[in-house]
Amino acid sequence: MGRRLDRSSKSSRCSEHRLRRRVQFYELDPAGIVHFSWYFRYMEEAEHALWREAGLSIAPPGAAVAFPRVAAAFEYHRPLRFEEEFDVHIRIAAIGGKSIRYTCAIEREGLAVATGTATIVCAIRTAEGVMKSAPIPAEIAGRFEVAAGAGA
Amino acid sequence: MGRRLDRSSKSSRCSEHRLRRRVQFYELDPAGIVHFSWYFRYMEEAEHALWREAGLSIAPPGAAVAFPRVAAAFEYHRPLRFEEEFDVHIRIAAIGGKSIRYTCAIEREGLAVATGTATIVCAIRTAEGVMKSAPIPAEIAGRFEVAAGAGA
Amino acid sequence: MGRRLDRSSKSSRCSEHRLRRRVQFYELDPAGIVHFSWYFRYMEEAEHALWREAGLSIAPPGAAVAFPRVAAAFEYHRPLRFEEEFDVHIRIAAIGGKSIRYTCAIEREGLAVATGTATIVCAIRTAEGVMKSAPIPAEIAGRFEVAAGAGA
Amino acid sequence: MGRRLDRSSKSSRCSEHRLRRRVQFYELDPAGIVHFSWYFRYMEEAEHALWREAGLSIAPPGAAVAFPRVAAAFEYHRPLRFEEEFDVHIRIAAIGGKSIRYTCAIEREGLAVATGTATIVCAIRTAEGVMKSAPIPAEIAGRFEVAAGAGA
Repeated sequence: MGRRLDRSSKSSRCSEHRLRRRVQFYELDPAGIVHFSWYFRYMEEAEHALWREAGLSIAPPGAAVAFPRVAAAFEYHRPLRFEEEFDVHIRIAAIGGKSIRYTCAIEREGLAVATGTATIVCAIRTAEGVMKSAPIPAEIAGRFEVAAGAGA
Repeated sequence: MGRRLDRSSKSSRCSEHRLRRRVQFYELDPAGIVHFSWYFRYMEEAEHALWREAGLSIAPPGAAVAFPRVAAAFEYHRPLRFEEEFDVHIRIAAIGGKSIRYTCAIEREGLAVATGTATIVCAIRTAEGVMKSAPIPAEIAGRFEVAAGAGA
Repeated sequence: MGRRLDRSSKSSRCSEHRLRRRVQFYELDPAGIVHFSWYFRYMEEAEHALWREAGLSIAPPGAAVAFPRVAAAFEYHRPLRFEEEFDVHIRIAAIGGKSIRYTCAIEREGLAVATGTATIVCAIRTAEGVMKSAPIPAEIAGRFEVAAGAGA
Repeated sequence: MGRRLDRSSKSSRCSEHRLRRRVQFYELDPAGIVHFSWYFRYMEEAEHALWREAGLSIAPPGAAVAFPRVAAAFEYHRPLRFEEEFDVHIRIAAIGGKSIRYTCAIEREGLAVATGTATIVCAIRTAEGVMKSAPIPAEIAGRFEVAAGAGA
C-alpha cells in the first residue's frame, strides 16, 4: 500500500493516476449500461489511489482535516457495459491554498467514455462541530503538483 | 417524526412497522428488476422507521452505543420493477439482553416478494477503539417488544 | 401515481417538481454526511417524479425511446445528516428538439444544500444495437414546458 | 479475461475463486466500517469472476437464460475499514439441475470477516414475459463442479 518514501524533490510529487477497473453487475441500469451516478465513484476511487501513490490516505484514522467535495461534474460520451475494462485517468488541474481541482477522463480501448471534474476543499471541524475551510497542511500539499498540461 | 411520548405502559411499546416505498431507477439491474442487494437496504429503512416510531434514532449524534448487524438474510420470491410501490413490513422476532432479531416481509399488492431476517447487537467502543457487545440500555429496550406471533 | 388526464392546454404542462425525502443510513459517509454521489440519485428521483406528475414514465416497459444522461453536475453548499428531511426541487431549464435540461436545488429548512444540473437526450436503438439521438416524441414533449424563470 | 479453452476433462472444471479487493470510501458507513449491504456485492463480484475463470459470462449479451438469486445471507464477524485489502473466497457448495449454491468467506490477513451463502436459479423468460426456472444448459453446468469439502 501507501509508500512513505522521501519525496522532497519536486519531480517526485504526484500529479495524476490511471486506474484500471472492470464494470460490475450491480453498477448497471436496466439498459445494460453503467448508471451515470457510478462515474462519480469511479473518479473518487482514482483520486484515493492517487493519494495512496503519494504516500497518503485521504481519510486516515483520527485525521485533523477532511476533504469534502464542493463540486463534481461529468459529461457522458459512450456507455460502459457489463464486464468491460476501462481506465479512470485523474489529473490535478489546480492546487489552491485550501482546495484541489481534478479533471478525470474515463476511457475504454482508447475511446473517450466520459470526462469529469471535481473540487475538494480542506476543512477542519470547529469546536461547535461545524466544518470550516482551512489551509491544506504543508505535508499534504507538498506531495502533489499540477499535472503537465492540465492547468486551470 | 419521532414522538417522544411517555411509553411506560407495555401496550405502547413498538414491535413492528410497515413502510410504503417505490422502486427507484438506480435500484434496477439489467433485467429491469431490483438488484438483490437493495432488499437489505429496504429492510434497514423500515428498521430505522420503526425506531423513529418508538421515539428513537438508531444512530443519534454522540451516541454511547451502536447497533452493528451480525446477520442478515433474504429469500426472493417475486421481482420488483421500475416505479412499483411495495411494502416493507418489519417485525421484532426476539429481544435478548444484547441483541434484537427482526423478520421482514416485502410485499406488493398482497403478494410475497421477499422474506428476510436480521440481527443487530448492541456495542460500545472500548478505550482501544474496538467494538464490544454490551447490554441494550434500558431506555432503548423499554421502547420495544416482540411482535405478536413473530416469536423466534 | 401517474395521472393520465387531458393535458392539451399549455397551462397544464409540467415544468417542475418538489420531492420531500429523508436521509437514509446507507447514504452516509464516514463523516456522517451524505456521500456526494447520492445527490445525483436524489435529482434522478425528483426527475422521475416530475415525469409521473406529467402522466409519464421515463422508462416504461417496451419503450421505443430511452433518455440517457449526457451531463450532470452538482455544487455542494451544506451537508445533510442522518434522518434529516430535505427537498429536491427540479425544474426544466430548457427543452430542445432532442434534449431536456434540468436545474435542481436541494434545500433543508429553506437553506441551500446543493445546486445541480442535468441534461438528458432522447435516443433510439439502431438495428446495430447502438444508441442514437432522436427527436423527443410529441406525446412526451407536449407534456412539459420550461419553468418560469428557469430559462437556460 | 475469460479464457475459452477446452475444459472437457473433469479436473479443469471451476469450483472456487479468490478475489483480492480494497475497501472503497463510498462503501463505508458513519462508523467508518463497510455497510453490511456491500458484502452481498462483494460476493457477487467474486461469483462473476469465478464464471469468467470458467470461460463464461453470467450475463452475456442476448443470453437465453438468466440466473436470478433466490437466497442470500451473511454473518458478520469483524469490520472492514477504509482502504483495507481483503479476500473474497467463493466456493460452489452444490449444483442442482436448475440451481447453484455458493458459500463465501471474506477474510482479512487470515482473519474471518464474514461468511455468506447464495443460491442462484437458472431461469428463462416465457412468452408472457415471466421468469420461469429451467435446467442449467449443459455447456454451463459442464464448466463447474462442487468444491472439495464444500458439499452442502
